Amino acid sequence: MAEAKHHGSKQKSQLDRLLNFSDGVFAIAITLLVLELIQTLHAQPGERLLKKCLEHWESFVAYTIGFITLLICWINHHIAFEYIRKVNTTFMWINGFLLFVVTLTPFPTAVLAEYLGKESRTALAIFGVNYILIAIAADAICSYAYNHHLIDEEHREYYYSYKLIYRYAIFFNVIAFLLCFVSIVIPIILYSILFVFFAAPKEFSSRLHKRRINKKITRKNK
Amino acid sequence: MAEAKHHGSKQKSQLDRLLNFSDGVFAIAITLLVLELIQTLHAQPGERLLKKCLEHWESFVAYTIGFITLLICWINHHIAFEYIRKVNTTFMWINGFLLFVVTLTPFPTAVLAEYLGKESRTALAIFGVNYILIAIAADAICSYAYNHHLIDEEHREYYYSYKLIYRYAIFFNVIAFLLCFVSIVIPIILYSILFVFFAAPKEFSSRLHKRRINKKITRKNK
Amino acid sequence: MAEAKHHGSKQKSQLDRLLNFSDGVFAIAITLLVLELIQTLHAQPGERLLKKCLEHWESFVAYTIGFITLLICWINHHIAFEYIRKVNTTFMWINGFLLFVVTLTPFPTAVLAEYLGKESRTALAIFGVNYILIAIAADAICSYAYNHHLIDEEHREYYYSYKLIYRYAIFFNVIAFLLCFVSIVIPIILYSILFVFFAAPKEFSSRLHKRRINKKITRKNK
Amino acid sequence: MAEAKHHGSKQKSQLDRLLNFSDGVFAIAITLLVLELIQTLHAQPGERLLKKCLEHWESFVAYTIGFITLLICWINHHIAFEYIRKVNTTFMWINGFLLFVVTLTPFPTAVLAEYLGKESRTALAIFGVNYILIAIAADAICSYAYNHHLIDEEHREYYYSYKLIYRYAIFFNVIAFLLCFVSIVIPIILYSILFVFFAAPKEFSSRLHKRRINKKITRKNK
Repeated sequence: MAEAKHHGSKQKSQLDRLLNFSDGVFAIAITLLVLELIQTLHAQPGERLLKKCLEHWESFVAYTIGFITLLICWINHHIAFEYIRKVNTTFMWINGFLLFVVTLTPFPTAVLAEYLGKESRTALAIFGVNYILIAIAADAICSYAYNHHLIDEEHREYYYSYKLIYRYAIFFNVIAFLLCFVSIVIPIILYSILFVFFAAPKEFSSRLHKRRINKKITRKNK
Repeated sequence: MAEAKHHGSKQKSQLDRLLNFSDGVFAIAITLLVLELIQTLHAQPGERLLKKCLEHWESFVAYTIGFITLLICWINHHIAFEYIRKVNTTFMWINGFLLFVVTLTPFPTAVLAEYLGKESRTALAIFGVNYILIAIAADAICSYAYNHHLIDEEHREYYYSYKLIYRYAIFFNVIAFLLCFVSIVIPIILYSILFVFFAAPKEFSSRLHKRRINKKITRKNK
Repeated sequence: MAEAKHHGSKQKSQLDRLLNFSDGVFAIAITLLVLELIQTLHAQPGERLLKKCLEHWESFVAYTIGFITLLICWINHHIAFEYIRKVNTTFMWINGFLLFVVTLTPFPTAVLAEYLGKESRTALAIFGVNYILIAIAADAICSYAYNHHLIDEEHREYYYSYKLIYRYAIFFNVIAFLLCFVSIVIPIILYSILFVFFAAPKEFSSRLHKRRINKKITRKNK
Repeated sequence: MAEAKHHGSKQKSQLDRLLNFSDGVFAIAITLLVLELIQTLHAQPGERLLKKCLEHWESFVAYTIGFITLLICWINHHIAFEYIRKVNTTFMWINGFLLFVVTLTPFPTAVLAEYLGKESRTALAIFGVNYILIAIAADAICSYAYNHHLIDEEHREYYYSYKLIYRYAIFFNVIAFLLCFVSIVIPIILYSILFVFFAAPKEFSSRLHKRRINKKITRKNK
């Protein structure tokens, strides 16, 4: 018993460090975005302040998109780890892949800021690749945690819905990415829908969970 | 009971991650300010060190103002969260809005450093917009926590005073912002008063709390 | 008894701060790498986006190598500290030396990005020096913790294997470094092998541990 | 009793956030130093790698000094807070002043890197001002914690020695600073002595503590 408890507390401290490290990476990536914004100030010295700010509107748009992207990422990470109880080396690498994409995010954000006015489709497509990678990483985390029983067993059924929404997100993101080469308005609408859904992943997956349970009951009753 | 306890510890760990992430963002934003200061060193190579430092006095002033602003923000965040016991997705987004303004703060600081000598009114007004946004975010956090019972119930009455001081701060900041277009000295005085009050928000709100209670008692006695 | 407990909790809080600070340093170093990537965007303004990205392929390669290096470092730090129960001032300095090399890592990464195409051998050798320093620091941490009984006594025998793998890593790295002056392909293969082994240090040292125990048993039976 | 316990845990969580925030600031400041080192790589494009590194030896020296300075600061912060049990708003501001100097430190480090070869005395004097400010902040933290009983009462007598060593450090630093205008070698020796003493503040203050107690006993026996 004491052994089990000791083991439990060691597991907890391992998970704690993983979360601490991840929170640190998220916090830094989200704060580094402002450096790109400050850069615009040094661009043409001598110009009037307000004119300069208005001319660089793409930088402000890109900053806001980058910030919301990383905040959504963090909220989803936060919620996906709520039921996770232990970690192993493989899982640390899968989480490491997510962090890789997170630390990379300031790059497509800078691309947006610089090329949104000039090569909007290519800039959007590069940001789209980032989203696909995030969705793959999120799916990998949830699937691995589910399949290798790293989660709280009583929420196993519920956690399955998380797995599903990130699986759907991959396909959704691939479609949005491909449409970047055809249109500029449609992918923006698609990404906005994505934002709305993953802004509250708990509510989104809860609904999916209820629907799945209702289906099961209907099937049983047949 | 065990369920409640389990639920409580989960809630605590969720709140812990939110605070960890927020502390990270504050710590990074406040430390990034120095990069702008270092930038001034690379400006005119070959110039004498002391002369360069003296010429860029605006950078040092802006650095100090930016640092104090973010430290006051953090102290207020620290104190407003003292009585908060649980979080939900909406609350994470409201806190996310505050973090958005916090990560943005190095930008108006850089604006101050670059334009304080040239376009002081516009530079001050941009910093003023930042203060209005911070006050709105602080008010939103306290109001939501108060209205949705995320706080410790025994301090509910006391917490109401926090709500009030941030509500007042919005109006105060709007007035200071508008006065930026008329004068340069008056808004600086107003912002200094703001600094003094929010440097010790606990003492400030305690006084307000006592006055409100005294008023109530007076009214009852009538 | 109460004294011992109090002492234990104080020790834990000291260790906690050391880990918090180390995790912070790792998280920041790994996230700063992206700044070098963004720098490439500002290099030749006016050029087409995709062409620019393809031309700077070294930056992306260097970014990935730098990220994996630091992630492996963190995972190894994580695992080496799993059994450590207390710290002292000397140990803080040894850990400080590791953090020194960790914060330095973005520099050889930037060297790789800039000189991989031009002076590949020198660039690789500079990165190699970084690896030697990391291995020396890791060995110093494990050896000190083992020799000064900072670790959980029941895992003492097991911890010896950690000590061994980092001792081996020093020699391995020195050889790989020397070969940088002769060839370019061989050190790359050697560093890839290093990556694979230290990606899962726990599994690696477990195997070594079992072999050592088997050897002991064989010797006894003789 | 329950109230006291509740109060204690709240105090602990307030102290935890203060330490978390401080650790974050230290970790970022210490990691940002590398950006200045990377900057040197972009200085003269086209030059040979090794030649460039050797030419910028001041940058490497400055980086090492900056790193050791901040690590010593962190270790001293770590040890001074070991016996601190509670915080208040004034104390947060005093700690905030220390963090102000800590976040500022990358600036004198960059000054050293750029002007060590050209205007060594002025560069050293600017770094000296930084040290004086750090010593004042450390003294203020220890004095306030001691005078306002924020520390563990059983270590009160011992804590007095901490107060003393930081008070001495102020005078030491002022002398070293003044000597910067006369010589270049003497202040470097003085700062090296400072480094050695504050590298292990616990051992240093323990010795002072024992001497003070011995004096007291001698006085009593007279």
